[in-house]
Amino acid sequence: MLTDPLERLGRTGGLSYLDLVRRRSIGGRTPGELAIPDAVVVPADPGQVQRVLEVCVSHDVAVVPFGGGTSVVGGVTALRGDKHAVIALDLARLDELVSVDPVSRIAVLGAGVRGPDAERLLAAHGLTLGHVPQSFERATIGGFAATRSAGQASSGYGRFEDMVSGVRVATPRGDWRLGVAPASAAGPDLRQLAVGSEGTLGVITEVALRVRPVPAVRRFEGFVLDGWERGSSAMRRLAQSGALADVTRLSDVDETEVSLALNAGWKTLLLRRYLAARGVRTPCLLVLGWEGASKREIASRRKKTVALLREFGAVGLGSSPGEAWERGRFSGPRQRDALLDAGVCVETLETAAHWSKLDRLRDEVRSALRGALGTPIVMCHISHAYETGASLYFTVLAARDDADPIGQWERAKRAACEAITGGPLGTISHHHAVGVDHARYLRAEIGDLGVDVLRAAKSAVDPTGILNPGKLLPAEDS
Amino acid sequence: MLTDPLERLGRTGGLSYLDLVRRRSIGGRTPGELAIPDAVVVPADPGQVQRVLEVCVSHDVAVVPFGGGTSVVGGVTALRGDKHAVIALDLARLDELVSVDPVSRIAVLGAGVRGPDAERLLAAHGLTLGHVPQSFERATIGGFAATRSAGQASSGYGRFEDMVSGVRVATPRGDWRLGVAPASAAGPDLRQLAVGSEGTLGVITEVALRVRPVPAVRRFEGFVLDGWERGSSAMRRLAQSGALADVTRLSDVDETEVSLALNAGWKTLLLRRYLAARGVRTPCLLVLGWEGASKREIASRRKKTVALLREFGAVGLGSSPGEAWERGRFSGPRQRDALLDAGVCVETLETAAHWSKLDRLRDEVRSALRGALGTPIVMCHISHAYETGASLYFTVLAARDDADPIGQWERAKRAACEAITGGPLGTISHHHAVGVDHARYLRAEIGDLGVDVLRAAKSAVDPTGILNPGKLLPAEDS
Repeated sequence: MLTDPLERLGRTGGLSYLDLVRRRSIGGRTPGELAIPDAVVVPADPGQVQRVLEVCVSHDVAVVPFGGGTSVVGGVTALRGDKHAVIALDLARLDELVSVDPVSRIAVLGAGVRGPDAERLLAAHGLTLGHVPQSFERATIGGFAATRSAGQASSGYGRFEDMVSGVRVATPRGDWRLGVAPASAAGPDLRQLAVGSEGTLGVITEVALRVRPVPAVRRFEGFVLDGWERGSSAMRRLAQSGALADVTRLSDVDETEVSLALNAGWKTLLLRRYLAARGVRTPCLLVLGWEGASKREIASRRKKTVALLREFGAVGLGSSPGEAWERGRFSGPRQRDALLDAGVCVETLETAAHWSKLDRLRDEVRSALRGALGTPIVMCHISHAYETGASLYFTVLAARDDADPIGQWERAKRAACEAITGGPLGTISHHHAVGVDHARYLRAEIGDLGVDVLRAAKSAVDPTGILNPGKLLPAEDS
Repeated sequence: MLTDPLERLGRTGGLSYLDLVRRRSIGGRTPGELAIPDAVVVPADPGQVQRVLEVCVSHDVAVVPFGGGTSVVGGVTALRGDKHAVIALDLARLDELVSVDPVSRIAVLGAGVRGPDAERLLAAHGLTLGHVPQSFERATIGGFAATRSAGQASSGYGRFEDMVSGVRVATPRGDWRLGVAPASAAGPDLRQLAVGSEGTLGVITEVALRVRPVPAVRRFEGFVLDGWERGSSAMRRLAQSGALADVTRLSDVDETEVSLALNAGWKTLLLRRYLAARGVRTPCLLVLGWEGASKREIASRRKKTVALLREFGAVGLGSSPGEAWERGRFSGPRQRDALLDAGVCVETLETAAHWSKLDRLRDEVRSALRGALGTPIVMCHISHAYETGASLYFTVLAARDDADPIGQWERAKRAACEAITGGPLGTISHHHAVGVDHARYLRAEIGDLGVDVLRAAKSAVDPTGILNPGKLLPAEDS
């Protein structure tokens, strides 16, 4: 058990803009105001996690499971709820590849294994998980499962919940294992209740995951489509034709413009000329990435995709834009510190909707953000596409209101969330999860009955309510 | 409300062997012994379903939702639990295509729409659901969702739960709607709690389903592999290479032999000679079916599949075995009556397991059935394959013990279920669901905590416990 203030400070809060702003102004605040845990516990295995929960039940102490600390929705803030103390339960020591079944292509990984370590451990068996979200470098297997993460190659590998074959969960009422078969009709799929439970129903200690052979070949490539509507129509066509590349990512005009502006130089100037000559006035960048066993296999898939893109007038840019994206794919979060230093309010938010509502949802979220922030830069991309719809990921930059930076963003975020849940047009989160920030919107999405069902499930496994209070579930009176 | 005895008798029990045996010996039994509902209610729309539930809550009457009546696990038996009366809630009038969103490829269908009607309604829009289980002709959309059905083309179209984009559920606490986006990280996926809930958490009234364009071309084809191990290895290779046909079904040697014996004649004799000349001593029939927009598209997929099959020494049989299977695909249940007349005990059971356990599971279930039934014919096939495992579907024929036909099958079924749940090696059901027959095995699969969570969820939406008593959940003391 660690009680050193710096250790405790390191295990609260995540990486949202508000987390960063608060962390820059901690002087003079009390641990309670800062939501710092009273202690950090670092168990070595699932059995020890179980025993920590038993101790916390008997002493009525709140438990906040802590993985990579990359939540952007307040999911790992050390709230104590109605408990007199709170610990951060750091799962870093559950860092093993527990077992591999190469015949069934299932690997069991400890909850504390980080993205790169998962790939390193699996690569020794010639296997890969293929889950590469922007948080990859720090985030953990347990966190991916607890939050329904989606990686940049989700078109090829699926969302994290699609990879989950089984879970082991430590709860105040005992160890719980789920998942004995590839598919089942033995009642509701309770794995899908554990996945996405954000530490409120138990502490995920091990996850059995579908794995695949390490691809021998990768290919990244860029295209440009003229205008958002044409771009999103092309995305839809690819998704509904089974022609998505493993990575498929479409930026809107604003995101593409910023990307070009940040890469100013001769090359970009030539690119602008090239596009203008082809009549492309409102370029939207489409990045595609394929993985496969051979160049031939990729070529065959690529042929189908490119043929469909040509119908939408896509202009090929060769490999460099795709490769540039691939090199910088994890750098977004790191750039934020520099922008914060420069007085910029910078944050992302995301949603997903059915195709028939997608363009309208994008318009309404942009309007909401503009209404709240004056003249922000609002960029948007689709990075996860499905047969029935797609995600929308917004990056917002605005001049920071230094008198009230927190209030400024809270108002903008609320306007965006209300645009999403009005109707409802989309989901309050496609892959960032609920945490504290989205809890008040959950009721609009799953109904009063949905909230009651989640509360009932929680009471069944966590009768005294020690697990991650204040997260996921809306306040009783909201 | 219908109270005529014949109407009531028509809305209880399903199509299991035990249901058929019991139905043949109803003389002299009381309605209670026969589990006949006290009345049949046939509401016209979701609002009326909601009002029926309200009336049943206020009068403490049990409600058994009734769709096509094709359950083979006792799922629609009119049990009253601790209630003084029970009604069958027949959803036949919820038979509409409620809405179509062709852009998002989502159709909302009423719970009472039967398989062929769903396809007819969708075909008017050029769309198909592609869900074709053996119960297709009678079973309903609501039943498919409530039981996690899997169709014969599940490799191409997915299991029914994979098609469910949203659900509308009538509960004693009100109307409940779920599903606003193609994917979400807004907490646990409660759609996956409603799906598979078998009428215990509510009455599914409408289902929003992912649909696809009607395929222009279909192609069925047969192959033979020499021996089960080689056959199941080939299935695994196809599943793990993304090379499954939309229908992919492998029979074991016994099932293949019975199929050949039932089609005795010159053609079969020639086939036997043909296989013997190629050194195939233990033929396992593999039926493949592709659907697609063009012959070219199918040819391209087929090429990959056949290349992999050649590595396992598969012998091509051309189109006739596949087409013969396709013609007879719904006839299995109808043949049972003739077998029953002939004094045969005939039933099916099914499970699924990870690939590394699949062959052992098949051996153990066969041994268990032989131990209980003497010298039965036990046939087995894989009809649903996944990257991590596959289903096993057994058909059992034995000389009926006319002194105790029910006890005879109950002992055999119990032995098979114990072979499945010991370990556990597999799931108690891949697509037949839980009903009454599997309820006692649910605890082995989802743990005491899983059962407690389901009970808690039920209490949240059905506090007085009127919904489908005795189904899905094991008895309190088991």
